[in-house]
Amino acid sequence: MNADGIKKYVFGTPFETKAVVNDVGVSADNIPYLTLRDDNRLVLYTMGESDKVYGLGEAVRGINKRGWIYETYCTDDPMHTETKRSLYGAHPFMIVDGKETFGVFVDSPARVTFNIGYTRVNEIVIIVHSPDYKLYIIEGETPNEIVKKFRHLIGKSYIAPFWSFGFQQSRWSYYTSGAVQDVIDNYRDNGFPLDAVYLDIDYMEGYKDFTISGERFPDFKEFVETTRKNNIHLVPIIDAGVKIEEGYDVYEEGRDNGCFCKDENGNDFVAAVWPGKVCFPDFLNEKASEWFGMKYKRLIDAGIDGFWNDMNEPAIFYSENRLETAIEKISAYKGKNIGVSEFFGMKDIVLGLSNSQEDYSAMYHNVNGEMICHNNVHNLYGSSMTRSAADAFKKIAPDKNILMFSRASYIGMHRCSGIWMGDNQSWWSHIKLNLQMLPSLNMVGFMYTGADMVGFGDHCTEELALRWLALGIFNPLMRNHSSAGTRDQEFYRFENRDAFRNLLRLRYALIPYLYSEYVKSIENDDLMFKPLSFVFRGDRYAEAVEDQLMVGECIMIAPVYEPNAIGRSVYVPEDMFAVRFRSAENYTVAPYAKGHHFVDIPNDEVVVFIRKDKALPFVAPADCTVNLDLDTIRFIGEKGTAFEYTLCKEVGVKNGEAVIEKKKITCKID
Amino acid sequence: MNADGIKKYVFGTPFETKAVVNDVGVSADNIPYLTLRDDNRLVLYTMGESDKVYGLGEAVRGINKRGWIYETYCTDDPMHTETKRSLYGAHPFMIVDGKETFGVFVDSPARVTFNIGYTRVNEIVIIVHSPDYKLYIIEGETPNEIVKKFRHLIGKSYIAPFWSFGFQQSRWSYYTSGAVQDVIDNYRDNGFPLDAVYLDIDYMEGYKDFTISGERFPDFKEFVETTRKNNIHLVPIIDAGVKIEEGYDVYEEGRDNGCFCKDENGNDFVAAVWPGKVCFPDFLNEKASEWFGMKYKRLIDAGIDGFWNDMNEPAIFYSENRLETAIEKISAYKGKNIGVSEFFGMKDIVLGLSNSQEDYSAMYHNVNGEMICHNNVHNLYGSSMTRSAADAFKKIAPDKNILMFSRASYIGMHRCSGIWMGDNQSWWSHIKLNLQMLPSLNMVGFMYTGADMVGFGDHCTEELALRWLALGIFNPLMRNHSSAGTRDQEFYRFENRDAFRNLLRLRYALIPYLYSEYVKSIENDDLMFKPLSFVFRGDRYAEAVEDQLMVGECIMIAPVYEPNAIGRSVYVPEDMFAVRFRSAENYTVAPYAKGHHFVDIPNDEVVVFIRKDKALPFVAPADCTVNLDLDTIRFIGEKGTAFEYTLCKEVGVKNGEAVIEKKKITCKID
Repeated sequence: MNADGIKKYVFGTPFETKAVVNDVGVSADNIPYLTLRDDNRLVLYTMGESDKVYGLGEAVRGINKRGWIYETYCTDDPMHTETKRSLYGAHPFMIVDGKETFGVFVDSPARVTFNIGYTRVNEIVIIVHSPDYKLYIIEGETPNEIVKKFRHLIGKSYIAPFWSFGFQQSRWSYYTSGAVQDVIDNYRDNGFPLDAVYLDIDYMEGYKDFTISGERFPDFKEFVETTRKNNIHLVPIIDAGVKIEEGYDVYEEGRDNGCFCKDENGNDFVAAVWPGKVCFPDFLNEKASEWFGMKYKRLIDAGIDGFWNDMNEPAIFYSENRLETAIEKISAYKGKNIGVSEFFGMKDIVLGLSNSQEDYSAMYHNVNGEMICHNNVHNLYGSSMTRSAADAFKKIAPDKNILMFSRASYIGMHRCSGIWMGDNQSWWSHIKLNLQMLPSLNMVGFMYTGADMVGFGDHCTEELALRWLALGIFNPLMRNHSSAGTRDQEFYRFENRDAFRNLLRLRYALIPYLYSEYVKSIENDDLMFKPLSFVFRGDRYAEAVEDQLMVGECIMIAPVYEPNAIGRSVYVPEDMFAVRFRSAENYTVAPYAKGHHFVDIPNDEVVVFIRKDKALPFVAPADCTVNLDLDTIRFIGEKGTAFEYTLCKEVGVKNGEAVIEKKKITCKID
Repeated sequence: MNADGIKKYVFGTPFETKAVVNDVGVSADNIPYLTLRDDNRLVLYTMGESDKVYGLGEAVRGINKRGWIYETYCTDDPMHTETKRSLYGAHPFMIVDGKETFGVFVDSPARVTFNIGYTRVNEIVIIVHSPDYKLYIIEGETPNEIVKKFRHLIGKSYIAPFWSFGFQQSRWSYYTSGAVQDVIDNYRDNGFPLDAVYLDIDYMEGYKDFTISGERFPDFKEFVETTRKNNIHLVPIIDAGVKIEEGYDVYEEGRDNGCFCKDENGNDFVAAVWPGKVCFPDFLNEKASEWFGMKYKRLIDAGIDGFWNDMNEPAIFYSENRLETAIEKISAYKGKNIGVSEFFGMKDIVLGLSNSQEDYSAMYHNVNGEMICHNNVHNLYGSSMTRSAADAFKKIAPDKNILMFSRASYIGMHRCSGIWMGDNQSWWSHIKLNLQMLPSLNMVGFMYTGADMVGFGDHCTEELALRWLALGIFNPLMRNHSSAGTRDQEFYRFENRDAFRNLLRLRYALIPYLYSEYVKSIENDDLMFKPLSFVFRGDRYAEAVEDQLMVGECIMIAPVYEPNAIGRSVYVPEDMFAVRFRSAENYTVAPYAKGHHFVDIPNDEVVVFIRKDKALPFVAPADCTVNLDLDTIRFIGEKGTAFEYTLCKEVGVKNGEAVIEKKKITCKID
């Protein structure tokens, strides 16, 4: 892939975001398609009536982003209702597909607003909140071609370890090693496959990064070793904030070496998150970044080979100064018999304390001696934290491919980490959101991703769990995670254990296919999850489908995301062959002609549509990834189908990265 | 209809809710179907795998209520996400339809929890929070038969005035008479029909009930008269709380005559809502209720003939005592450098001030000299307020059929008022919720109802407005209403005015049909909006449909409720004839065979499915209801169709109620 069709423009003196690795020279041409106004901070485009818009990575609403305002500004907000503008990631890349087809990447670490037909139905208005940014226009015949060019520009995506395609169980929190063991035992005793259990913030001592609670997790190293023998990986969380505590070495080192973000007076910036008062490592400072990354060694030395970085937007519950001001304001109301407007003011004061732009504007980074206001580079914080770890991993354990994914992100982080889709809810609408975000995240490079299955916040039901699982088995990151205070949702908690076992085992049967498609899509700068509109160009029904996906080269999925459903309407965009899985061993196949169909899908079954002239490779399920027999691949499909399938296997690790072996298998179904 | 198949059981000494008018004697039989435990406060039932559950009136989620926990406890909560348990109305009636088919009405003015397959997929667990209640079991062959028996039990529903089937425009707020006039002028100038404009809280002087701001609405009576000449009805809001202000006669009268709710010491209970400190009229006290109802006379004398009662759950922002305690608690944190748990505690303190059960438990009603704790009769407050007005209307203006609807409600209020579906959001999911609540509300007697079209809270888009309008034209209460601080959403604000005009005019063309079906369904104790499952018994596809409705005897609707859609999948449950309306004058018809179809529906069109052997009566549109020519009815349908249609006309008013004339029209389509 060369840089043909990519045009770059630079305004002001942009902060280096590290999003781009295969850069192009600044274009001498006029900017095509777009009109720039107001010192280049307003970018305008008029869409055709039926133009579609794709991209923007982690965001609410559909695959077609038209009809709303989005903002790239990493935000800790778990209420992903359909009118939210920002979630945890910032991914300012979009594709217009219609009377003209082109991609736009606004490479800015500050807030960017995308008004896509919200104010006026055919107008795109992009507001770039900082004057210093790079603008890339990517031209191509099709959205898929534009994605490939963009993905080449930003470099190859992170390849997660093969074991991380196994099913993973999490909760905030399994408080003790005994609780973790219970989860493992329950999964194993029920014959449910499992590859990993997560350690949320309570494994730490007082929420101090890189500590282990001696009381709740005694003999941690041994415990890690025991679980590994049971083919379970433990994946601890690391939060961005470092607890301020005399005697806590990470804090003292950071303080003494000037590794923390500063306030406007040059003192360490102090805010509160889970541990109480914390300082934030200055990940935009090279020295601080290196220092923090090497701290992961403590856990890696204890046998840990997977991490999730959290709270790295960074989330701020409150800053000391603003909290004190708030309390003072409220105290002044004492005995005053205040009115309704003061009451609402008081509410606003309290609710406005968290994740406030005022705090982000009072925080500074030391970049090569220059103090940079955090708000102008806000979107890089989580990415930089994660890059600091990933860089360190190669030094600490070049022989390991360590699992890493993050909550906050910016484009570029995809080269060293995955992301999960953040703190969602046990809502039916979030099953659909999970599906819709998969292709959007692939477009901006995030290939190892998935939503917290069954939902993080709020209470689930068994039916929701089953239906979400039926989509979850196609997510590269397949994790069941839930918040403290919500209903327990480990799959063995429910009544119809046979159904959960069957679906979990089906995932394992499909892992060779999913992993192969994942690796190949990374190598080809392609999407693993494609909207039907990317594949069936010119088919107006396919182009409007928002709740089905092409997964890799062979299949299409159409999960159910409504309660009390007996099935769903499916658009079959070409003659296909449907496999109805009751389990990995018990399935039937039937042809579906191109067109609209209502497909019966009981909640203990999964229906997969196989593309014309393709078949679905699968293996016998196992209790964990390491026990999968990858040499005995079978195919499901129509009789007479013959094609060559390229299987990818992780055969080793070099420089901290997976070594992949490819094998061509001839599929012939008699 | 006799009381056959209705069994009544009484536990403790229930407070009279006035839900039932055609009561039955206490049954001597054992309670069928259900198992009662824990002193009758736990009601249990085991469902079959595919049993469906209907009812519960105003609630989130689908028509089939299975798979969640609901609570009847009138709650002011505008965030109608899918996991909320209570909304504004309390409607404790449900139907189980499956291996056994029966209805259950838990007649209790206190909280009742309905766990319908949430904890265990096949278990219904009803928790009656007060020991004093009546339990009705309604038996019948079908859900529709059970609804009819239940509706007979609770008495005939309120018939709203014919003009209230016209389109109505609202916003919080049109602050001045000039602003109201602008709205009217814009509608009229654009050729958009309109029958009413709403006055939200700012028409009052300092939010004082039954006052008019002299500054913002000078010469109010004249203004009402002028707008009436323009065929516009002005509909003011009345809030539950009466502002505490010396010199404000309503307050002084209430105070001096002991007409307000009390605290535990017998003093007037004081809380804050929009006007600041208020007292709540004791609507459960006959004298207080009569007194407050007669206050509406001031506005009726000014020419007003429609009201909406609001904030009558009652909503409470805070009570004086608890606010002071909260401020004291927070003040104690001053200079203390508090930790994270205290911070979250502070948040909880502030957020917990509103609509708190602590306040509801500290508030008392004087019922025949007995002090009744509000919390035990909470669900009757809004209903009693509305009944107080409705009773007064018959004395004040027996020659008028005054429009009345309320936010809070309990079963029984349906005899004197409608309800709107409360403060929803400009969310696509709330279009579907609007649709799904229509039959559920009909089941419990609320026939004059509708959602705030285009959404009350949050910002809308033009596409959302058009799609919501396409459902809104079938809502008896067809009102566009929005919150302060959100995007203006009067239909003339948008770009494609032709489309809005066409759909609004289509509504007017359909009013004779909608009004006739509304009246007949009331007379027959039937549903105006039926789930397909009620009509096409034994058709498993029809039984699972959650997003289509039968509207009256002739038609089925299937609105689009997704952004960027080109149409939707529709299940056609029998051979039907579809009318594609581009406008009331421009339409095409086409047959649809029984089965699943994808139907193209551009956002400026409405598709209506006409039942086998039926046709759709309609008239020429007009700018307001009074100008509709109801004597020139035409029919759309298949050639050769012949049937007799009964048209209902409002021909006068007697004792404050509509006098209806029925006319049989022979439809014959050549």
